[in-house]
Amino acid sequence: MKVEIITTGAELLLGSIINTHQQWLSSKLTRLGFEVTRHTTVSDKAEEIKNAVSEAIIRSDIIITTGGLGPTSDDRTREAIAELVGKKLIFDTKAAEHIREYFTSRKREQPQSTNIQAYVPEGATILYNQFGTAPGLIIEVDRTENTGKRTVLLIMLPGPPRELRPMFENQVIPELKKRFVNENYSCKILRTTGIGESKVEEIISEHLKPLENEGLIIGYCARPGEVDVRLEARGEKSAKVVSKAEYIVRQLVGDYIFGEDDDTLEQVIVRILTNKNKMLAVAESCTGGLVANRITNVPGASVVFWGGIVSYANEAKMKVLGVSKQSLQNFGAVSEQVAKEMAEGLKKLSGTDYTIAITGIAGPTGGSPEKPVGTVFIAVSTPEKTIVRKNFNPYDRETFKHVTSQQALEILRREIIHET
Amino acid sequence: MKVEIITTGAELLLGSIINTHQQWLSSKLTRLGFEVTRHTTVSDKAEEIKNAVSEAIIRSDIIITTGGLGPTSDDRTREAIAELVGKKLIFDTKAAEHIREYFTSRKREQPQSTNIQAYVPEGATILYNQFGTAPGLIIEVDRTENTGKRTVLLIMLPGPPRELRPMFENQVIPELKKRFVNENYSCKILRTTGIGESKVEEIISEHLKPLENEGLIIGYCARPGEVDVRLEARGEKSAKVVSKAEYIVRQLVGDYIFGEDDDTLEQVIVRILTNKNKMLAVAESCTGGLVANRITNVPGASVVFWGGIVSYANEAKMKVLGVSKQSLQNFGAVSEQVAKEMAEGLKKLSGTDYTIAITGIAGPTGGSPEKPVGTVFIAVSTPEKTIVRKNFNPYDRETFKHVTSQQALEILRREIIHET
Repeated sequence: MKVEIITTGAELLLGSIINTHQQWLSSKLTRLGFEVTRHTTVSDKAEEIKNAVSEAIIRSDIIITTGGLGPTSDDRTREAIAELVGKKLIFDTKAAEHIREYFTSRKREQPQSTNIQAYVPEGATILYNQFGTAPGLIIEVDRTENTGKRTVLLIMLPGPPRELRPMFENQVIPELKKRFVNENYSCKILRTTGIGESKVEEIISEHLKPLENEGLIIGYCARPGEVDVRLEARGEKSAKVVSKAEYIVRQLVGDYIFGEDDDTLEQVIVRILTNKNKMLAVAESCTGGLVANRITNVPGASVVFWGGIVSYANEAKMKVLGVSKQSLQNFGAVSEQVAKEMAEGLKKLSGTDYTIAITGIAGPTGGSPEKPVGTVFIAVSTPEKTIVRKNFNPYDRETFKHVTSQQALEILRREIIHET
Repeated sequence: MKVEIITTGAELLLGSIINTHQQWLSSKLTRLGFEVTRHTTVSDKAEEIKNAVSEAIIRSDIIITTGGLGPTSDDRTREAIAELVGKKLIFDTKAAEHIREYFTSRKREQPQSTNIQAYVPEGATILYNQFGTAPGLIIEVDRTENTGKRTVLLIMLPGPPRELRPMFENQVIPELKKRFVNENYSCKILRTTGIGESKVEEIISEHLKPLENEGLIIGYCARPGEVDVRLEARGEKSAKVVSKAEYIVRQLVGDYIFGEDDDTLEQVIVRILTNKNKMLAVAESCTGGLVANRITNVPGASVVFWGGIVSYANEAKMKVLGVSKQSLQNFGAVSEQVAKEMAEGLKKLSGTDYTIAITGIAGPTGGSPEKPVGTVFIAVSTPEKTIVRKNFNPYDRETFKHVTSQQALEILRREIIHET
């Protein structure tokens, strides 16, 4: 089943906002076994939307549009697509009621303009919007082509992510499952860190060759500080093939695998700490709060996270963490000794089971011949010991911060799991 | 001049990574006066790339592709496009030398496969890659159409952002400027925070009407915690029209404008503090280090940033910031009193000129009828006083954190600029 995603909106073409729908929807669809073959972004003009949709109809089985379902004059998707496929817009009383209800439940007056959203293409399946007023819509388009008859599914979703995402998860996925039973598809993504893409491939590819003959498809995706190994298969034996492949990959590079599918390293850390009923605190210099920020992005982190010290100035390292002036003078702020003192000082201060400490040079300036930009010391203190690693991450400032935070979380993860 | 951007790569269609090229390139092109009319993403298969490019050639004047210029079997863009436009690939000795130089200067052995990147379409302008091996390419394609002759520019850029971005800035922009003089285009983006999109529009639109008759185009873009006002004009008087419009907007909503064009609020804060030679420290509970992280994303932040305390646990608030146990018991951790004590305690600890303190309920759990999820107290302490604001940001966890950090930085910005 080929799927195309058409995102609409002037702000995307102006470069005012990043297009997150494409990635989010593609990731969800891929996991369900659909093949996303194209992303297109056009303006919110009716003509442009019609062109993009009519091109996609020829190529694909499912077309998802985002945006342009609201009540303003910029919102042309509903009308444009209805016209394109020759469906009348009719007033749907249940949709109108749902919109009215949205405002009354929030004790807000309903702007008259919002009523237009209750006009829907004849025969459409209506996806009521839990977090906004614009209903999503599904229309079936029957096509007669040289190769025979074919039905194309047009799915229109609202633009705001907080409306689109729950609508897709709760209403579109069940519809897709109902229409296209994908029992014969299996997919597992194993997420690794601390090992390069070519190294992973070198280690595992030969051992997976026999399974490739049984239909296994292997994919790799490298991002800064992370490599995904993607295992998929179609057909009756797909589940078995993927699970055999997973077993082999885990045997070979299991140490580097921190999670599966949508897992993030910070989620895994919070999960492990929660299960073990342990607490963590972090002391960050060059990562400037990124590690704390990542951990606190996880709902429920407060149970395991004492807090963090962003000791950017040397004075903060001394005053709050108790790093000695002498160490700072003798070894410099970016040194094994200072990383160790930061981690152990924080342990004393917080009384937590684990601490992480990071000190390094993010750049673009501040490097020296002995300690070039990208040099970083990461200390992890456990109930038994404190270990310090020296790494070299010569990237731009934000990549440096991200990769370093990833390395720190991974050192902690390995220490904890190897304790058991 | 219509521009289309074609990004290629399986990992984009699988949803493994977010497409940042589209936004980055579109933003740059728009500021130069080009109209970006479509974004397309296809796989790295030669056939798909050819289809996408041949469709775009009919519609547009400039086509930019990203990705597929490397040395592996997945890299098909160069070959596919050369074939499509009927150009031979010829070996370019200067390109080969540049690739060799890339490896020797890094004291690495050159893999033989990389030589393929020196085969370039005949007549192409070669963009030597400062941060990788794949050269970028510009080809002119002359077309004879019903409406006459027309030249289309095909620009091929490498996929990795750290290669693409400097190549675009340093080599493509000068080429574009040479070919398409856009003297008669002006654009200014005024970035506001603390005011809604419809409110800004309500205040300024009527006053800008007369300038619209002179060619002013006004656009709005709302993101969480931020609204951009975009002013553009074409033609001989464009600079004058835009500067008049800017003057009017600043008169009407100047208080809400924190920056221009690419400015971020954290950059503005670091700039103001640097100019005034003042220091900042932050104490964060519910934002969990995000404010510190944003500030330390700005190169040079270390000059003005003492550090941060992520006082997630109450114990951290007491131990590090000196918040009183009594206040925590009587008013709760999320209260005006605790926010104030955090800001003032941090001031004592750090000795900085300014502190920010944030305490609130990010959710999804932890709310109560009196203090629902989204409740937050933000304190800013200056050399003269401490002010505390209570806000309500009932969003998902990450949006809550972002909007709250935006509000905190904005309160600080206003306090500092109004001191003068």
